[in-house]
Amino acid sequence: MSDYDLRDRMAAARGAGTPAESRETLPKEFLATEPKPLGAVTNWHDEADVVVVGYGGAGVCAALEAARAGADVLALERAGGGGGTTAMSTTHIYMGGGTRVQKAVGLEDTTEDMFRFIMASADDPDEEKVRLFCDQSVDHFNWLVEQGVPFKDSIYPERAPEQPNDDCLIWSGNEKAHPFRELAKPSARGHKVQHQAESGPLLFGILSEHASGAGVRTQCDTRVLNLIVRPEDGRVCGVVVRQDQQERNIRARRGVILCAGGFAMNRGMLRNHIPKLLTENVSPIGNMYDDGAGIRMGMSARGTGIHMDDYFITVVWYPPSSLTKGILVNDQGQRFINEDSYHGRCAEHAKQQGRAYLIADNEIFGYPSSGLELIATEDSIADLEAALKLPTGTLQNSVAIYNENAAKGEDPVFHKHADWLKPLVEPPFAAIECSYGIAPYMFFTLGGLKTRASGEVITEDDQDVVGLYAAGRNACGIPRSSWGYCSGTSVADATFFGRIAGRSAAAHEAWS
Amino acid sequence: MSDYDLRDRMAAARGAGTPAESRETLPKEFLATEPKPLGAVTNWHDEADVVVVGYGGAGVCAALEAARAGADVLALERAGGGGGTTAMSTTHIYMGGGTRVQKAVGLEDTTEDMFRFIMASADDPDEEKVRLFCDQSVDHFNWLVEQGVPFKDSIYPERAPEQPNDDCLIWSGNEKAHPFRELAKPSARGHKVQHQAESGPLLFGILSEHASGAGVRTQCDTRVLNLIVRPEDGRVCGVVVRQDQQERNIRARRGVILCAGGFAMNRGMLRNHIPKLLTENVSPIGNMYDDGAGIRMGMSARGTGIHMDDYFITVVWYPPSSLTKGILVNDQGQRFINEDSYHGRCAEHAKQQGRAYLIADNEIFGYPSSGLELIATEDSIADLEAALKLPTGTLQNSVAIYNENAAKGEDPVFHKHADWLKPLVEPPFAAIECSYGIAPYMFFTLGGLKTRASGEVITEDDQDVVGLYAAGRNACGIPRSSWGYCSGTSVADATFFGRIAGRSAAAHEAWS
Repeated sequence: MSDYDLRDRMAAARGAGTPAESRETLPKEFLATEPKPLGAVTNWHDEADVVVVGYGGAGVCAALEAARAGADVLALERAGGGGGTTAMSTTHIYMGGGTRVQKAVGLEDTTEDMFRFIMASADDPDEEKVRLFCDQSVDHFNWLVEQGVPFKDSIYPERAPEQPNDDCLIWSGNEKAHPFRELAKPSARGHKVQHQAESGPLLFGILSEHASGAGVRTQCDTRVLNLIVRPEDGRVCGVVVRQDQQERNIRARRGVILCAGGFAMNRGMLRNHIPKLLTENVSPIGNMYDDGAGIRMGMSARGTGIHMDDYFITVVWYPPSSLTKGILVNDQGQRFINEDSYHGRCAEHAKQQGRAYLIADNEIFGYPSSGLELIATEDSIADLEAALKLPTGTLQNSVAIYNENAAKGEDPVFHKHADWLKPLVEPPFAAIECSYGIAPYMFFTLGGLKTRASGEVITEDDQDVVGLYAAGRNACGIPRSSWGYCSGTSVADATFFGRIAGRSAAAHEAWS
Repeated sequence: MSDYDLRDRMAAARGAGTPAESRETLPKEFLATEPKPLGAVTNWHDEADVVVVGYGGAGVCAALEAARAGADVLALERAGGGGGTTAMSTTHIYMGGGTRVQKAVGLEDTTEDMFRFIMASADDPDEEKVRLFCDQSVDHFNWLVEQGVPFKDSIYPERAPEQPNDDCLIWSGNEKAHPFRELAKPSARGHKVQHQAESGPLLFGILSEHASGAGVRTQCDTRVLNLIVRPEDGRVCGVVVRQDQQERNIRARRGVILCAGGFAMNRGMLRNHIPKLLTENVSPIGNMYDDGAGIRMGMSARGTGIHMDDYFITVVWYPPSSLTKGILVNDQGQRFINEDSYHGRCAEHAKQQGRAYLIADNEIFGYPSSGLELIATEDSIADLEAALKLPTGTLQNSVAIYNENAAKGEDPVFHKHADWLKPLVEPPFAAIECSYGIAPYMFFTLGGLKTRASGEVITEDDQDVVGLYAAGRNACGIPRSSWGYCSGTSVADATFFGRIAGRSAAAHEAWS
């Protein structure tokens, strides 16, 4: 079942084909800043045990598991069909500890190595979540397989942000880069759903068909406006929605699960929380409804947002992978990162420099497939230094030290792996523009509601907001920074913790 | 009147001398996560037009101006006496545009240069606030003088974090450092209240005496627990306090002004918002009640916190000012900042490195007055490089380029001012430990409620939280990052915007 089938079915089910409302035309009072008090609800238009807000990767997993646990589940989606940002993604899913595919291609991995790696590379890791995520990672893989999600027993060996074919595994993070390779035995953990191109719609389609089969009701073109809260104790009791141009109250007997995505598309929230991203040539990644409404509904009910200033950002400067043998330098002609780090980690470090250039020689040069601009070619490093207006001697010194050590297969300065070391000696020499604000950077947000590993939204004081759950980018989960990001952690986190939140909400006591 | 006089007077006024409650023993329900609905208030124990929460630098200015505008004002302070963190500070007050003291010592300054400098150096500046702050800076100085706050017509010429005497002016920020000196004509703007030591208690004493004279009632040993809010429209109507071990409701007819400080002392909030500060050898600066309660009360009433991840941090590595002629290098043997930058800016950059060392030669060496550790002395830069286990050649290259240019009075790499340039050639050579997590760093928080320049707390959507105001570090104001900080911006911001918030609240319509 594709998104479009779902959209049609939902429209038919509700006897209407109203277009999704435009954000711009909505009056201010519809913004999700306040919950509606239970006492103000005069009638309920619909009800369910568990109401899921947002039907993307997290939402469909939450809905499916809640339904399988016996709950009556209603999933609400603002767009004309489900899928969300998950369905727009390549669908890398970060899993390890010895999955079927890892074993089939001869890759060793253990739960402990995965745990150590994430703990070392994540910014401010939530140890309980990381532990659960790693301990049950093979189970999560097997669960996806049981649903019918296809993974080919193969690995794409090149260094690239994503595989251009249907190979499954890819080295999708910083596992082999210093300092992480010394802290945990590296393994490839980015699993792509088997598909020639981006496999997001395939994954979502499979999962949503199961959800439908398990009895999940879905209503698209349905915008959730507010939570409904019992003022005496803050219990979340339902949601107010706008549907067919009418405002309706939907009772959630057991719980509401917020799965409505990050806030990359909300310039006002970016202005408040990550103003540095509102910069020339910096573009959001996501679907148009990633406006943070779910996060704000949760905050309005006493939830607290954490890591609201954190984001994933990248400038894609490889492939060709041979460019990894070049060096990234700043406007002081200094290197600032081991260039075999994941592109998001390199980008975050590049962003902190005044300027950033990738320096390559003729032997390794290739035009970046992302189209980054070649801004200088010269016959010597000294000339390149002058062309880039770098202080005299700085780039020459950096290259001299790099070359001297690379000839010995060493990089004592930044510890790039020996596989990517070779002296930069063959003219002409090239500089590729990687500067923040000039080269094209892309981002999405990583902050969200503070939740327990079991999915409950909690307050600044770690008290439960009773009846409220969050998953995907409405929660702050496994990925928490660009410098520690690995491709596949977002979809893995959304689907894994979405499932858990679904089970938790289904098991929660109903209010009356 | 000293703090202690105030404490005694307040205790006498209330007929009790109850000690301030310990945070640890308070039950969870006292945490300021939720407002009390107006309907739950059965009786009012006290009332005023304007209620000020927290009686430090911002609070006393808010109370004073509200009272002078004709409002009946009640100021509530949790400690046994007023003063807050302002009274613990050196009391630099950042003012410019041509104050009496600037003119007396022959320093030129204009409102526009002050404005350009703050706009260039602040992180994500709020232009409206910066404009107001600069336009009225001379007026603010004159107002302080009118209250009787003494400023000596003198300048302390040395480069130091604070003057050890009663001189008034000091270069207290990055004004003369690249790139700011090229963007705005530099001037010294840190005005210290005339006093041999820290003058915070003096400033607070003068202002609180005026407030008292203007009719402001103050109640100390009074903890504000919650806001009282009218659920229908979110109007803030008063506060719940704990006083003499009883919970009491205080009506605020016109408005409540939150002036209760940052959250440097609240490890839970730091955990949620700035986890990187919970590191070995990193200590908070502030008073014990800087626990963020005011910020959280504001958030609970639909206010939004901005720059919650931002902070001031420093490691004080000068005086002696001659150390400024040294170079700061990281564990790649590279410089990373122009060393004539303000200590907080240097510290923020040092914090981003793996390690940070100050390198000096014998001619400029002096033990840092802050007691930072000397970790190596060697007869050559090559030996120092080896002693610090830096990659071979890296420090030697950095020093060689630095020396070659310094001999010409230039620093084309980081643009340190010529005043601080000299080749590092006289052995022995020294390294002083400045690494984050090892050397002693100190911080306070800069995030707070989003407010209008006129003091109103606003929501994520920039709607007013009617009846609620904030100033000082309960608001996010002029200072927003360590790399753009200047000594004196906190007290200047607190007193300046405190005054404005007081006038705004006094002029606001009363509820009934």
